[in-house]
Amino acid sequence: MNCFKKLVLGFLCLFFSLTLVAQVHPGLMMTKENIPAIRKGVLTYPILKNSYEVVKKDADLALSQPIVVPTPADAGGGYTHEQHKKNYTHILNCGIAWQISGDKKYATYISNILLKYAEAYEKWPLHPKRKDGHQGGRIFWQSLNDFVWQVYTIQGYDLAYDAITAQDRAMIEKHLFKPMMTFFTVDCKETFDKIHNHGTWDIAAVGMTGYVLNIPEYVQMAIKGSNKDGKTGYLAQVDQLFSPDGYYTEGPYYQRYALLPFVIFAKAINNYQPELKIFEYRSQLLAKAINTSLQLTYTNGFFFPINDAIKDKTYESAELVYGVDISYADIKAQPELLDIAEKQGQVVVSDAGLKVATALHENKTKPFVYQSQWIGDGAGGLDGGLGILRYGKNSDQQCLLLKAASQGMGHGHFDRLNILYYDNNVEVFPDYGSARFMNIESKKGGDYLPENKSWAKQTIAHNTLVVDQTSNFKGDWQEAQKHPAVKLYFNKEATRQVASAMEAQAYPGVTMKRTSALVKVPSLAKPLLLDVFQALSSKPHQYDLPFWYNGHLIDASFKINAYTNNLKTLGSKNGYEHIWVNADQTLPASGGYITVLNNKRFYTTHFVTDSPIQVKLLSLGANDPDMNLVESKAFLLSQKQAENQVFFTITEAHGGTNPVTETTVGSASVVTELKIRSADDKSVAVSFKVKGKVYDYRINYQDKDNYIQLTNADITK
Amino acid sequence: MNCFKKLVLGFLCLFFSLTLVAQVHPGLMMTKENIPAIRKGVLTYPILKNSYEVVKKDADLALSQPIVVPTPADAGGGYTHEQHKKNYTHILNCGIAWQISGDKKYATYISNILLKYAEAYEKWPLHPKRKDGHQGGRIFWQSLNDFVWQVYTIQGYDLAYDAITAQDRAMIEKHLFKPMMTFFTVDCKETFDKIHNHGTWDIAAVGMTGYVLNIPEYVQMAIKGSNKDGKTGYLAQVDQLFSPDGYYTEGPYYQRYALLPFVIFAKAINNYQPELKIFEYRSQLLAKAINTSLQLTYTNGFFFPINDAIKDKTYESAELVYGVDISYADIKAQPELLDIAEKQGQVVVSDAGLKVATALHENKTKPFVYQSQWIGDGAGGLDGGLGILRYGKNSDQQCLLLKAASQGMGHGHFDRLNILYYDNNVEVFPDYGSARFMNIESKKGGDYLPENKSWAKQTIAHNTLVVDQTSNFKGDWQEAQKHPAVKLYFNKEATRQVASAMEAQAYPGVTMKRTSALVKVPSLAKPLLLDVFQALSSKPHQYDLPFWYNGHLIDASFKINAYTNNLKTLGSKNGYEHIWVNADQTLPASGGYITVLNNKRFYTTHFVTDSPIQVKLLSLGANDPDMNLVESKAFLLSQKQAENQVFFTITEAHGGTNPVTETTVGSASVVTELKIRSADDKSVAVSFKVKGKVYDYRINYQDKDNYIQLTNADITK
Repeated sequence: MNCFKKLVLGFLCLFFSLTLVAQVHPGLMMTKENIPAIRKGVLTYPILKNSYEVVKKDADLALSQPIVVPTPADAGGGYTHEQHKKNYTHILNCGIAWQISGDKKYATYISNILLKYAEAYEKWPLHPKRKDGHQGGRIFWQSLNDFVWQVYTIQGYDLAYDAITAQDRAMIEKHLFKPMMTFFTVDCKETFDKIHNHGTWDIAAVGMTGYVLNIPEYVQMAIKGSNKDGKTGYLAQVDQLFSPDGYYTEGPYYQRYALLPFVIFAKAINNYQPELKIFEYRSQLLAKAINTSLQLTYTNGFFFPINDAIKDKTYESAELVYGVDISYADIKAQPELLDIAEKQGQVVVSDAGLKVATALHENKTKPFVYQSQWIGDGAGGLDGGLGILRYGKNSDQQCLLLKAASQGMGHGHFDRLNILYYDNNVEVFPDYGSARFMNIESKKGGDYLPENKSWAKQTIAHNTLVVDQTSNFKGDWQEAQKHPAVKLYFNKEATRQVASAMEAQAYPGVTMKRTSALVKVPSLAKPLLLDVFQALSSKPHQYDLPFWYNGHLIDASFKINAYTNNLKTLGSKNGYEHIWVNADQTLPASGGYITVLNNKRFYTTHFVTDSPIQVKLLSLGANDPDMNLVESKAFLLSQKQAENQVFFTITEAHGGTNPVTETTVGSASVVTELKIRSADDKSVAVSFKVKGKVYDYRINYQDKDNYIQLTNADITK
Repeated sequence: MNCFKKLVLGFLCLFFSLTLVAQVHPGLMMTKENIPAIRKGVLTYPILKNSYEVVKKDADLALSQPIVVPTPADAGGGYTHEQHKKNYTHILNCGIAWQISGDKKYATYISNILLKYAEAYEKWPLHPKRKDGHQGGRIFWQSLNDFVWQVYTIQGYDLAYDAITAQDRAMIEKHLFKPMMTFFTVDCKETFDKIHNHGTWDIAAVGMTGYVLNIPEYVQMAIKGSNKDGKTGYLAQVDQLFSPDGYYTEGPYYQRYALLPFVIFAKAINNYQPELKIFEYRSQLLAKAINTSLQLTYTNGFFFPINDAIKDKTYESAELVYGVDISYADIKAQPELLDIAEKQGQVVVSDAGLKVATALHENKTKPFVYQSQWIGDGAGGLDGGLGILRYGKNSDQQCLLLKAASQGMGHGHFDRLNILYYDNNVEVFPDYGSARFMNIESKKGGDYLPENKSWAKQTIAHNTLVVDQTSNFKGDWQEAQKHPAVKLYFNKEATRQVASAMEAQAYPGVTMKRTSALVKVPSLAKPLLLDVFQALSSKPHQYDLPFWYNGHLIDASFKINAYTNNLKTLGSKNGYEHIWVNADQTLPASGGYITVLNNKRFYTTHFVTDSPIQVKLLSLGANDPDMNLVESKAFLLSQKQAENQVFFTITEAHGGTNPVTETTVGSASVVTELKIRSADDKSVAVSFKVKGKVYDYRINYQDKDNYIQLTNADITK
């Protein structure tokens, strides 16, 4: 961190030596000198044209309705809340429509609505519906929404600036923006100085307002914190909220959300003070964060839904449109980003959007390349991380994610050493994400449901080991926050990709190590997922390793014998109470297999352990009086009593069905004879057979240079 | 039928007066005079080029392997079965490759493999694995597969004819085709003369062989039956297996399958005896059957999965590629068919395929128009039928199917007055289809599962009324076959589409009437699904009306209070034993509603009855030891004890969510106050409110001219 600190201080000195450049409007996402080019681009480039049409449609909608600035009264989702949200969108879109069309009616709208806000704002007290423990806003129930309101509104104001009379501007600035800045920096000082995404929004709003109103004080506070000492503020946030790999600790879903104020304010800084080279800061950290956000999606564009995540979120979301456009236009014109922009199907109508649209038109696109990589967590990148293995082209890619990061604060899940596995454009071993129906009023107003805590966060809801039917760290996230998981090994060599990590704090007295690998053996077209989960303890424990799967179970090595009536739950707490036990079989130590048909492809998971285990087939939905839980199914490998235990599984993706031609190929797995040869705290040795050839697979925990050994007659010769 | 009989007799007379035209090869799907044009087309038109590449790839695969003609030994799915299937595909594809490429190696392959068959065929007895009750084949375990083999093989032989020496041809015809024809017409006489799809395949094989070998006797038998009296044979099959609307009584899944031999043999007749005008026969019945097959799909291309159906079957299947190509090329060049051909992405490499590819290239395509229509069942079209209502463009269409047909023989389900409801490209109220994993060996060799009988065919598995927890006709299909449902009324007026039908035989002493309508009221953008199900009886019964739904339940008018543990089944037989009861509430007669979120759109079903009922939330999977059943959910309206009962429901499709932009609109239904005003055997009067306006809706069963009355202040003025 010392190195960083020096850099920050150097940066601050540079900053003090400067005054703001002369005011020209607009100067944020769209700048005056670029307007003619953007206008032309809107006529020329289809993606820019379509994007502008969406903007203009909303601007025209705004003009078709009476201006309504209601006294704040309702909580999230309520009438006044939604109206004020609509208003800021209208203001921004009218600003863009004014600059592109030159039709003054759009600017007049902005002037009129902001005058209404200016008339009222100072009379509004703290929001009546503010929540305990959350900083209330004046327009919205939480101050966060007020910050967001201003990030959009100040852009609209900047766009319309030259068309608003000096008198009206004075009114708006004096009675709306300045008192608002006081509220944001004084009343909300704690948030302003907090290293947290709410703080980022506050800072961005204040800093952007500072630039547009030409008030260096606001800008300085935004960049260096309210004490202007660099301990808080924008640069401190960039330093502390992201890892050196550009990972935001709460996970991809929140990374996407947190990214917008970072990127949009950086663009403002760069426009007004290009000499600060903000995009170069911390080795182009922002570009890295944008790129990492994209790398945190599967090839279908969906973010990996670890921690509290809404599962159907993709890189098409607005935050990533801003991110991709700015990254391409202002940081580094990587042609791979154009591939994403094309899939997003829109650009920001802005300087950056114009560059992207132009490049797309010039066919500069290259396919986006998904990388196998370890993404470190924590400000220093050393708090564990995510191991991501990928094999195959984007149209049909195998992808494995090993989650061995820090807790990720309050939205983190208790899922140390969890794996997510994808193939053929779908989830094979999915993560549940959060228990929440975003914006569905009938489901607790769209907020997190009680089952988010009782189910989604619990360890058993994930594809990882549960010890003694309790969750990691007994479900205490503050405790968990102190102890990140530990990266042991990562290798991205194409045919032997490996991620290995350890977690020794989640369960007192139990050390857990997981080594997951995509290994391609010569006789198979696709890699096998080899997964070795080892638990070591000096005392006996119950070890439960679930594999939540998608698709339909179509074969097993054992008679399934499902319960036919009186379905019971798996347990009574820590998420077990939400699980129905559909079937329950005791298997010998020699193991068995389960085959699932998912999106017309077969997946056979073979498993073997050191001792006889039970295999349970599970489904979700018990103790769910409001039916809040979404259908989910798992097979659970369960060991009632053991000190040390190894679960060795191989999942083979094979064959497929074509229902239209009514043909099936490769429905039988060719992997056989999984064996555990030896296992202790230094190494694990296992073996398996593929098409008659025996493979020995050895993990040497203490030998980084020779961590994985895979041998068979063919490979070694 | 008299009219038809005359036509048939006239046809037969015409036939007798003719002799076959001089032999030219090839003369079936591809004719000699067209070869140069097809060769050119393969170079010119992308769809024909791609289709030929698939053919050539298989032909080259054939040539790369040794010829294997194994002695028949294995049942369906086994080695010899699959090998003989591969062989006929190779023979056809090599025939096409020879004609297109002019490379004689392909023709030589055909000669060589057919000589091997000719050496062996006469030595093969009836297949050792033939099933009891099914006519065994000589090459395959059932004669059906032998017929199919020859339908393909004779085409390949015809294509290669001129390149095979006269000596080899004599050998092949004498020792393979002629003894095979004896087997098909003498040993399999019963099947040959049966009005059934197995008979159609037999006839097509014999007739096509007759044309290619220039043996009029075979052709005459094929067209007029083995006695040449027209009581059986091709024309009788066309007369009796299809309704005048082109509906095949077993349902769309089997209609698709049955269609191929009809169409391909018709094409042969038309080529050799164009003066017979076979495509004009029975008012262009074959064109109607092809078109009806397409109309029996939802806009996503999937067939309506009524009766025993594999659910993921679309009009992309080979049978419909043949059907569409021949219909366009030889019957009527409807530009709408090109839309389907484009979606199929392939054509048959043939005369017909060339015409389609040419027309596609000339941009003659018009969008396929899905019609609201009543499709009558039975040879006379009077055995009930399917009422299909459609509203909206193909990209987002509401579609309701009311099933009020005949039983559909042994593959029929006990689902009188069942409804299927689609919207927004997905199933809203789905049909389960059959319980079968086609070609999945681990699931009973891919055959129908025991649960097909115990679950999929049972009445409770469908969206229709179950009386006293028993299935229609007590589950006896032969009994059911005697009594088709009765069409009462059909109206396709765009904003008030109605299908109404009656079933009075399925349950002794109970008359059931269902009237389902897509009604557009002025204040709503989409139609409402109004559904009135009336049961009339002089004795008390239990009435259960399930709605199987897709999506997630997100709201209800009542507290759901799901069972939290010890899940129980709904009953002990007739399919009830497969259902878990998740929740169970008693509601007042004033009713309630349930809202489901499905594919990002809301569906609220409001319901009201004459008396208090129970609402049960159900899921599938009990008494399923092998986990053969697929996840399914329903809400069930249940009346324990009533004589007469009306279930009035309105399903409103409304609003939607966008998870990427995190916005939700229109999550609340605007329909309220459903009431049953009066109900007897002559009429049912109900009412409901939309946005404050009361609508009265009246069904007059006895007044065909005024069957439906919908009135409110607005509509009547």
